[in-house]
Amino acid sequence: MKIALLGHGVVGRGVDQIVSTCTQGMEVSRILELPDRLSDPRMTSSFDDIVNDPAIEAVVECMGGIEPAHTFIMAALAAGKSVVTSNKAVVAAHFEEFAQQAAASGASLLIEATCGGGIPWIASIQKALRIDEVTRISGIMNGTTNYLVDTMAKTGEDFSAVLARAQVLGYAERNPSDDVDGVDVKNKTIIAASVAFRTCCVREFPVMGIRNLTKADMRLFAGRDRVVKLLGRAVQRDGRYAVSVEPVALPMRSLEANVPSNFNLVTLEGATVGELKFYGQGAGSLPTGNAMVQDLLDLRDGRRPAYDFSRQLDYDPSLLAGDYVLRTSAAAPAGAIPFARGAWVMRNRTAAEARSILDEALADDPTSLIALLPQED
Amino acid sequence: MKIALLGHGVVGRGVDQIVSTCTQGMEVSRILELPDRLSDPRMTSSFDDIVNDPAIEAVVECMGGIEPAHTFIMAALAAGKSVVTSNKAVVAAHFEEFAQQAAASGASLLIEATCGGGIPWIASIQKALRIDEVTRISGIMNGTTNYLVDTMAKTGEDFSAVLARAQVLGYAERNPSDDVDGVDVKNKTIIAASVAFRTCCVREFPVMGIRNLTKADMRLFAGRDRVVKLLGRAVQRDGRYAVSVEPVALPMRSLEANVPSNFNLVTLEGATVGELKFYGQGAGSLPTGNAMVQDLLDLRDGRRPAYDFSRQLDYDPSLLAGDYVLRTSAAAPAGAIPFARGAWVMRNRTAAEARSILDEALADDPTSLIALLPQED
Repeated sequence: MKIALLGHGVVGRGVDQIVSTCTQGMEVSRILELPDRLSDPRMTSSFDDIVNDPAIEAVVECMGGIEPAHTFIMAALAAGKSVVTSNKAVVAAHFEEFAQQAAASGASLLIEATCGGGIPWIASIQKALRIDEVTRISGIMNGTTNYLVDTMAKTGEDFSAVLARAQVLGYAERNPSDDVDGVDVKNKTIIAASVAFRTCCVREFPVMGIRNLTKADMRLFAGRDRVVKLLGRAVQRDGRYAVSVEPVALPMRSLEANVPSNFNLVTLEGATVGELKFYGQGAGSLPTGNAMVQDLLDLRDGRRPAYDFSRQLDYDPSLLAGDYVLRTSAAAPAGAIPFARGAWVMRNRTAAEARSILDEALADDPTSLIALLPQED
Repeated sequence: MKIALLGHGVVGRGVDQIVSTCTQGMEVSRILELPDRLSDPRMTSSFDDIVNDPAIEAVVECMGGIEPAHTFIMAALAAGKSVVTSNKAVVAAHFEEFAQQAAASGASLLIEATCGGGIPWIASIQKALRIDEVTRISGIMNGTTNYLVDTMAKTGEDFSAVLARAQVLGYAERNPSDDVDGVDVKNKTIIAASVAFRTCCVREFPVMGIRNLTKADMRLFAGRDRVVKLLGRAVQRDGRYAVSVEPVALPMRSLEANVPSNFNLVTLEGATVGELKFYGQGAGSLPTGNAMVQDLLDLRDGRRPAYDFSRQLDYDPSLLAGDYVLRTSAAAPAGAIPFARGAWVMRNRTAAEARSILDEALADDPTSLIALLPQED
């Protein structure tokens, strides 16, 4: 099977390495690169060389970003070439359009690498769906923020100091907004929830990041035997669903609280299988490359996933509600109960209400932080 | 697809329920039961009624024990019927024989439910093997002992008190030896390691249980920020492998230390995918039934796993070595370093050496306990 790579960055090189050393009957025959980086005879800067090559069966997109990734994926699918992608932004934005084009062309769309790096997460959701309704997905889906929080907890340093070092080491982007403001988790949660709930999830729901998490916050929660992590969450029941991305003050003895470094831990729940959790490297050249090559092997072996988004579910933010802690120097919100100096608990609010409470507080104190405070089991 | 169940206990009823409510194109048409329990028109007490029925494509064995399960599985495979089983004892004892008969008859042997209940564990190992060598498997594979230790840690009670209550509640067998002495974990480790390492693992290797774990031991290790759990472990490298089952004093901040109740957590390691962990219900009617119905769905969809045991690996116990803590009133072993009153550390011993040290101590003090003391990351 001849493959073309779109992009030869960290992930593309991982795919290239794994295909050449670990698989048989598969070959990376073309690589799309920028005109000034054509360092390999397989490289071209013209997408036409790839999409018009009838020998190429699958296109592996690991460029990132919306355009030109969106155009290239649509063109490849329309040409009957299957697409394997690690690009969560473009899939979250165009999942239904891609799935329809794939179905219309008899090509396949494979997205394991968009969520959870090397974790077989999308495949596990699809496997669970063979028997169960999946009623909940949640988890730590961003390795960078888990690394930041884990390091803060271990060294007692402040967010900005740990972030600066992570940027120097290449663990965090120069512009960290996608990670620390929850955009990356938002995209992954949209994708995983859309697969799990068999509906194209809405793109607007409460997203709260951890940019304002301080070492004082970490100490405050550690004193209550908790640690704050950034979680994506989605639930469905009775024809309705809700999605959120938010900091969660997890009990120290939970599995999530103990996820180290840049690892991910994702959860699904089904009626007969119960709760399943999957842990692994959420990013990186070889783990993400592994997920993409697993998709290629599924293609080669005729295991072609299809996406069913026909389910009618109403978006209902009231399904995700709980107690929240707001740390701010702004005035306490109505109904707030003192939690600590400069911090309040608000009982039984939805994530959408929490987002509004946070926005009001941020107007007065731009360092304000809000976190869900789940009850101990 | 017509299916016959061998046994209609906890697991058999789970399979029956899931097949009738969650799957299409599948039917439990016969059930083997004892002559005095034929309460359903599908039931028969004659295996011949099943093995001679050409309409039955798959036999689901959930009787447990070695005989007659072994004879029935071989007869079903020889008759060209695929076998789905949750019986770890019989698969651990006869894995190669079953796999050879399946290959010879063109039938399939599916064993997901033998290890880790509802966790897609065997399938995940086989998926990882498409790309990577699996160099290590390990984990909490027995829900009963995890429940016992977790309850001891939470209530401060002694082993015998918690075990007695678990027996009343049906969480532990009246004869708890299979669970607390490590026999169940041994069988699961043999099966998972044989799949992972592509060799039929030896049946004799060091197995140490947690029968002698006391509340004083729990306190001793809690004071060092550790908790003792029963783990199965297997590693391979450079053409050699080793296997063990033993109590491990895990750092409190590890994922394994925080596995609650009767859940399982299993780990595999591959060169490109890194470390993957899988968590879920390790037993129970519906989770184990779910795993067996997943196997049936694979059968229906033509996904038929094959087992490759052709790899030549030498068994070398020296691959699993570390520091051990022995708690005993017997004399300290040679080279032991004081750890606490009545407890010693022995540096860098193999699991086989630890088993010998424990046996010597048990001769003088039958309450002695040994546990691996892994270094903190």
